[in-house]
Amino acid sequence: MYPLYVSDLARFDGQIVTLRGWVTHKRSKGKLVFVVLRDGTGIVQAVAFQPDVPERVFAACEALTLESSVSLTGRVRADPRAPGGFELAVQDVAVAQLTHDYPITPKEHGIDFLLDHRHLWLRSSRQHALLRIRATVIRACQEFLDREGFIRVDAPILTPAACEGTSTLFPTDYFGQTVYLTQSGQLYNEAAAMAFGRVYCLGPTFRAERSKTRRHLMEFWMLEPEMAWCEQDENMRVQERLITYVVETVLRERRPDLERLERDVSTLEAVQPPFPRLTYDEALALLRANDLDLPWGEDFGAPHETLLATRYDRPLFVTHFPVQCKAFYMAPDPVRPEVTLSADLLAPEGYGEIVGGGQRVHDLALLEARIAEHSLPREAFEWYLDLRRYGSVPHAGFGLGIERTVAWLCRLDHVREAIPFPRTLYRIYP
Amino acid sequence: MYPLYVSDLARFDGQIVTLRGWVTHKRSKGKLVFVVLRDGTGIVQAVAFQPDVPERVFAACEALTLESSVSLTGRVRADPRAPGGFELAVQDVAVAQLTHDYPITPKEHGIDFLLDHRHLWLRSSRQHALLRIRATVIRACQEFLDREGFIRVDAPILTPAACEGTSTLFPTDYFGQTVYLTQSGQLYNEAAAMAFGRVYCLGPTFRAERSKTRRHLMEFWMLEPEMAWCEQDENMRVQERLITYVVETVLRERRPDLERLERDVSTLEAVQPPFPRLTYDEALALLRANDLDLPWGEDFGAPHETLLATRYDRPLFVTHFPVQCKAFYMAPDPVRPEVTLSADLLAPEGYGEIVGGGQRVHDLALLEARIAEHSLPREAFEWYLDLRRYGSVPHAGFGLGIERTVAWLCRLDHVREAIPFPRTLYRIYP
Repeated sequence: MYPLYVSDLARFDGQIVTLRGWVTHKRSKGKLVFVVLRDGTGIVQAVAFQPDVPERVFAACEALTLESSVSLTGRVRADPRAPGGFELAVQDVAVAQLTHDYPITPKEHGIDFLLDHRHLWLRSSRQHALLRIRATVIRACQEFLDREGFIRVDAPILTPAACEGTSTLFPTDYFGQTVYLTQSGQLYNEAAAMAFGRVYCLGPTFRAERSKTRRHLMEFWMLEPEMAWCEQDENMRVQERLITYVVETVLRERRPDLERLERDVSTLEAVQPPFPRLTYDEALALLRANDLDLPWGEDFGAPHETLLATRYDRPLFVTHFPVQCKAFYMAPDPVRPEVTLSADLLAPEGYGEIVGGGQRVHDLALLEARIAEHSLPREAFEWYLDLRRYGSVPHAGFGLGIERTVAWLCRLDHVREAIPFPRTLYRIYP
Repeated sequence: MYPLYVSDLARFDGQIVTLRGWVTHKRSKGKLVFVVLRDGTGIVQAVAFQPDVPERVFAACEALTLESSVSLTGRVRADPRAPGGFELAVQDVAVAQLTHDYPITPKEHGIDFLLDHRHLWLRSSRQHALLRIRATVIRACQEFLDREGFIRVDAPILTPAACEGTSTLFPTDYFGQTVYLTQSGQLYNEAAAMAFGRVYCLGPTFRAERSKTRRHLMEFWMLEPEMAWCEQDENMRVQERLITYVVETVLRERRPDLERLERDVSTLEAVQPPFPRLTYDEALALLRANDLDLPWGEDFGAPHETLLATRYDRPLFVTHFPVQCKAFYMAPDPVRPEVTLSADLLAPEGYGEIVGGGQRVHDLALLEARIAEHSLPREAFEWYLDLRRYGSVPHAGFGLGIERTVAWLCRLDHVREAIPFPRTLYRIYP
């Protein structure tokens, strides 16, 4: 018969089916062999009972090893004790490959060993749960924006100039010319927003940061919405609704995965708008009151974010960062021009920044001055300046880091598990 | 009142609303000024009638120029003659920026001029239609696969080795080490398929091809599904259903955009499974009968694909390409090992390849031999070989080029208009 998936079993109770997958566990007990099979959609226990099957089949089941690939035929039977509620009474078996010496064993492995074997580590139930949640986060982001009327307009990866500062660029040879991997799609998003009103891009971005913190990847995915005719307050309200939608979707669709990760979901269920807000100055006062001093004008580091992000039960906006903390395009507050119309969104439980956003400079003369102050190559930004020459409007947007969001939702110690193949300082394999 | 979008107007007939956008056209006729406003969701004509509005408002409307950014308040009124069925009787106006000398005028511009001004060209109604269709294609691809139980597992962009041949790599400096931009996520997809059964990645891919054809971009987006326990025939059936779903979705949701492009939709409506199939040998005989000779074993070029792709009313599978045409991982046909279990899918109306796919070598010894024959660096592929050591199974997949698919659906002359910011040979700006 046509092969099925483990996720289909409930519809086939009592019938004979064929499942194909990999052995995640096997034990023998007298006349019984128990084989736990993973096929990507779920896990099921198959039982071979010696008196019921040909000797060849029983022997083949007994010989199965961890991560052998196998096709098992048998009758589906409901069993409330079984994970998933069903098990398979084996009648036949076809071994695709008998695996020997699978490198990842039930014993503990160090992180370097696991990362070296990331291509196999993906098969573990924990990584399954994480990456299913990641897929759901990405889908939920797009669903939310598509329903709100945003148009997906992808930004280029290869770019002629820096967007977020020149010290963290990856140079690439483009037929003899040096170009850079994008740090953010935002500048291009601004062009698209002037054409389509509300847009987003979703793709990989790159920062050559020589940092080995638990929050940094060299290559990470970012969702970046951008809205024309939008000021910072509305920008924050969109973020609140987006984050709430993503959390609700993960809670609704991925609860078994959250349970497998032993994630306390009560803290996620608390995520509802409005999110608390602190100005940079208020946040700084709070840090100082907790013996974490910082000169005014400096950006927060990991310890500062962690402290702020443990004081609220939901994500926290820190607003009005000083101009010197932020990129050249960030709009100044008209009533206090030394701070910007910006906000970082810090995830609770100590996670810190998952979103950075703000209103953009839409005045041509100010933007020209900023480009000069930052010693950026003016020629490369002529097109960007055009957006302030031809129908400039107030506009705002933000970037949501997919892996940081997943790390928070899954309560990971390190962002490297939130992406299928992490690129960290010195790690580019596999 | 809270600002609205043009797409909302039908719900506000007779009411006073504010719309914000850009002027795409303006003309005066006696006591009337007609302003056509684009806000990204649609286009509406606003009419200022001198006796009905303050002199300041009438004068401001008269002074509006192409691509000025403006906020218009007025009463919505149904008018069957108006595009969209509604127009706005202007009562007030607020100009954000009066634009002077907008570079793109109604006259014809050369393609280099337009590409130099891509950040502004995006505002034209034709580019709007194209990029909305592109967004729908990308969403439909994900929708189809998500519903079928595929899990999104993103492949890395920075990779230590080539996937599709070493001559078309973009080298990037990674903290002193040379790495490459991905040519395809497939090798990583194979690892993910062994973990999740059925997976896909969707992201930018890169080929440093020194070609200036209408089918090539240096940076293009690809959807790549990969299925464990899957042979080539099933792989092709998935492609048929995916393509059909994408075409149906575009026809259903984007018909006004197709009309704006003057696309003959009857040829799209014919796209239904099963798609015709020719073997490479049959295709070669057909080419030779049409005076397009080619030695057996050489890959088809643009003229060959064009000829084949004009002979059928729906996409055409060309199967069983010779081993020397295809990448090292493509599985040989067991009954005729000089050809592969592969297929290219050629879009009709002369468009040519939009999908390349096939079954992968799952035997360890054969894959080792292929890596040696292709002089590929064995160390970089050790992880990939592991997939044949630990629970190897027959598997297959494919890559669908997003921009080529959009170019076909929109009947574009050149793929460069199917991506927001094209990267072609020597073009990296804006």
